[in-house]
Amino acid sequence: MGIVVLGIDPGSLVTGYGVVRGEGGKATCLDYGTIRNHGKTALPRRLGVIYNQLIRIARDLAPTAAAVETLFYSKNVRTALVQGEARGVVLLACEQVNLPVYEYAPSVVKQAVVGQGGATKGQVGFMIRRLLDLPALPPEDACDALAIALCHLHRVSVQGLKGRGRE
Amino acid sequence: MGIVVLGIDPGSLVTGYGVVRGEGGKATCLDYGTIRNHGKTALPRRLGVIYNQLIRIARDLAPTAAAVETLFYSKNVRTALVQGEARGVVLLACEQVNLPVYEYAPSVVKQAVVGQGGATKGQVGFMIRRLLDLPALPPEDACDALAIALCHLHRVSVQGLKGRGRE
Repeated sequence: MGIVVLGIDPGSLVTGYGVVRGEGGKATCLDYGTIRNHGKTALPRRLGVIYNQLIRIARDLAPTAAAVETLFYSKNVRTALVQGEARGVVLLACEQVNLPVYEYAPSVVKQAVVGQGGATKGQVGFMIRRLLDLPALPPEDACDALAIALCHLHRVSVQGLKGRGRE
Repeated sequence: MGIVVLGIDPGSLVTGYGVVRGEGGKATCLDYGTIRNHGKTALPRRLGVIYNQLIRIARDLAPTAAAVETLFYSKNVRTALVQGEARGVVLLACEQVNLPVYEYAPSVVKQAVVGQGGATKGQVGFMIRRLLDLPALPPEDACDALAIALCHLHRVSVQGLKGRGRE
């Protein structure tokens, strides 16, 4: 059967997503993309677009788990507030379709995908394309989402049935 | 006819709400309360409770507008992120029931209700109880929500049809 993980990189302008299936030690990309909003669109409308599209993606691809990055810091308070708004809506969308959410620190995601916690965006993109055998490099936010999904897959395969791998 | 305003004070543990009708220069309280979550409940579940209850309140009381406080600052980045998560879900709930959202700075809310931008919580509570002729003092978060709703009512009556009074 395997498991299907929906990785999400929340942002009120661009939210990246990536859906990965893990089966028999192999990871396959089922879908990836970005949910884009215009900067001039009012915030509540933008959040509605993110929510509705994530619900649609979850219903179409039937993931068994969602994974997002833990956010402990931000450039400043204003940025954190805006990031929080998109993140809250992402967590809500998962909750509304009964998808358990797992959180991983950015360094843990990079470690899982590249092998080093301080990897660059370029290194992450290179490994995502290679690990998932993709014909082209996905947009940056989708790459990040696929990396988070792969990180969860990695944790589950390493930890097996030991439970939820929050880190 | 008059207008009905849903004021909301978002928080992942306690979200206050207050519904006020304005008609012929008089404000009447239709409902107020708090949506409470246990601190041990997982965040996505908490956000689900806030979202579902706000949608229910909006459907039951059919407000014509929603009002929230603008957040420009916060004690720290972590707090801003958490506040943002609840706030994002509140804005989404309004969007999903086609409720236009108006934002007011905390000092503008206090100015509208008490007459001074630096008013204390106690002064706000006193005036809320008096202006809405309430038999008892509502919980603090509900008081804040009622104050935001009254602020919007005040703006609309002062500005008339000049349009949206974002401040």
